[in-house]
Amino acid sequence: MEGILAAYGDKVRFLEDDYRVLLSAYPAREGKVGIVTAGGSGHLPVFLGYVGQGMLDGCAVGNVFASPSAQKMEDMIRACDRGNGVLCLYGNYGGDKMNFTMACDAVEMDDIRTETVLVCDDVASSPKGEEEKRRGVAGMVYAFKIAGAAAEEGRSLEEVAAAARKALAGIRTMGVALTPCIVPQVGKPTFSIADDEIEVGMGIHGEAGIEVRKMMTADEVAEELLSRIEADMPLAAGDEVSVMVNGLGATPMEEQLIVFRRVAQLLKEQGVSIYMPHIGEYATSMEMAGLSLTVFKLDGELKALLSAPARTPFYTNGNK
Amino acid sequence: MEGILAAYGDKVRFLEDDYRVLLSAYPAREGKVGIVTAGGSGHLPVFLGYVGQGMLDGCAVGNVFASPSAQKMEDMIRACDRGNGVLCLYGNYGGDKMNFTMACDAVEMDDIRTETVLVCDDVASSPKGEEEKRRGVAGMVYAFKIAGAAAEEGRSLEEVAAAARKALAGIRTMGVALTPCIVPQVGKPTFSIADDEIEVGMGIHGEAGIEVRKMMTADEVAEELLSRIEADMPLAAGDEVSVMVNGLGATPMEEQLIVFRRVAQLLKEQGVSIYMPHIGEYATSMEMAGLSLTVFKLDGELKALLSAPARTPFYTNGNK
Repeated sequence: MEGILAAYGDKVRFLEDDYRVLLSAYPAREGKVGIVTAGGSGHLPVFLGYVGQGMLDGCAVGNVFASPSAQKMEDMIRACDRGNGVLCLYGNYGGDKMNFTMACDAVEMDDIRTETVLVCDDVASSPKGEEEKRRGVAGMVYAFKIAGAAAEEGRSLEEVAAAARKALAGIRTMGVALTPCIVPQVGKPTFSIADDEIEVGMGIHGEAGIEVRKMMTADEVAEELLSRIEADMPLAAGDEVSVMVNGLGATPMEEQLIVFRRVAQLLKEQGVSIYMPHIGEYATSMEMAGLSLTVFKLDGELKALLSAPARTPFYTNGNK
Repeated sequence: MEGILAAYGDKVRFLEDDYRVLLSAYPAREGKVGIVTAGGSGHLPVFLGYVGQGMLDGCAVGNVFASPSAQKMEDMIRACDRGNGVLCLYGNYGGDKMNFTMACDAVEMDDIRTETVLVCDDVASSPKGEEEKRRGVAGMVYAFKIAGAAAEEGRSLEEVAAAARKALAGIRTMGVALTPCIVPQVGKPTFSIADDEIEVGMGIHGEAGIEVRKMMTADEVAEELLSRIEADMPLAAGDEVSVMVNGLGATPMEEQLIVFRRVAQLLKEQGVSIYMPHIGEYATSMEMAGLSLTVFKLDGELKALLSAPARTPFYTNGNK
């Protein structure tokens, strides 16, 4: 947290020197709906790297892979309310849900309105028909961007929540892992996997995937991930999507680009066009090797919100 | 290369479909001095990730860790000359030097003027007094930025080269490595190092460092690197520097920020202020774990050039 402040003190600040609550340092328009999130550390740039202008107003910060407390979330929501309410937009994990629910109940007593939108984009974590059980992974970055842009436009709390829900209805992610990561307080790998194996559908905390396979090429990884995403969310000729290839921490950019290349080929063959691809580390698992693929179905409204300006430590859209 | 084109085709293009020569796709002012580089692959975003507006006009692309040919460099220089010459700005490696020298000789016959500035920023690779033998590492990103901005301002070839030399006179880098990387065509690690060891002064191709030490904390790494840099380039109270903490490929952003935090503390104690810190992956060695620290001494002119607008696949300054 001291490093974040030293590096990005022009973009973010802490709530009354509380290193558990990071807030945007940019001036916000009067009455702008607040957008907040929270979660455990170890996933930079997720979560706090997206606090700033045009995305998140605040982020409550937990220990590595652990939810922050309800109290910190409550403090954050109060700090981010400008009279028109706060959208709590976060990944579908038990601890975060429990604590955010308590925090929202607490602020409601003081007539601060909140809406909750859960990110459940990981298709590997629960079958079709049980989408509400899915984990939230890299797709949340798109959700932050869409909700943040909608709030900047002056939309109401209900409208901002609706924009986030509409975006998430068209967002699907799936990942693979080649190595585990080590939680510092634990000191040993979160799971084990052989050198010649790859786990398909791995979560970003090392949650078990759906299948352990023999090592695949980058092209095969692209084909596997895209086909599973399309089985869950069919695409048709004429569709326009944004694609995120997200490195989990130790996957070279060169390999991410080889995966993107194959995804772009496959989508082109289907007549699907790509708008604003995102390739790099957006939601990591410390030093885990692997990557995830996110497909985000767009329409005119979502394209405009995606391309709206944003300035945060780890995400900048320079269109301003 | 196909991935680069699929992802960033709005910013870069290939010279007549030659995947060995990447050029900026942005329109350039008539007569702008060209800025080019070249080098082996495996270091993304170095080198080609900085081709675009306000940095490099072109990059010749070699195989992993191998120089591209003199012919490709020659083709690139010809493509980037707008009548006022081309600056060849690249890392101090034998293959690149030999090929660039041949390329410059070849274009000279057609009255295309070139200037050469070698990047020799790695203090670990040769002692003080033999700076011209040092390797070029992450500091080259700053040199690309300064030269690119000077060329955008309409300066002459000699003036652009002088700005790059002035910048490099105040740029020093040093790195540590915790794991090797694997060159795909070789299939085995480039060197070996024990789990509890860290190599100080390692090059970005796995060149031997100056010392193998027992594992250190992030704070100790920061202290070690900064003290060695300052032994080579003293800093004084009142100095202003940009600092780059550069992940080599598999080092979590969380750890990079802990190192930056300590560097910022130490500089503050010395009365040295930090302008535009750069933290992230700027010059990698595929999946190598480790990082480098670069210190760049600034004055008013260099600050203005550093903060000038740039748009490339991996580096954007949104001040426009």
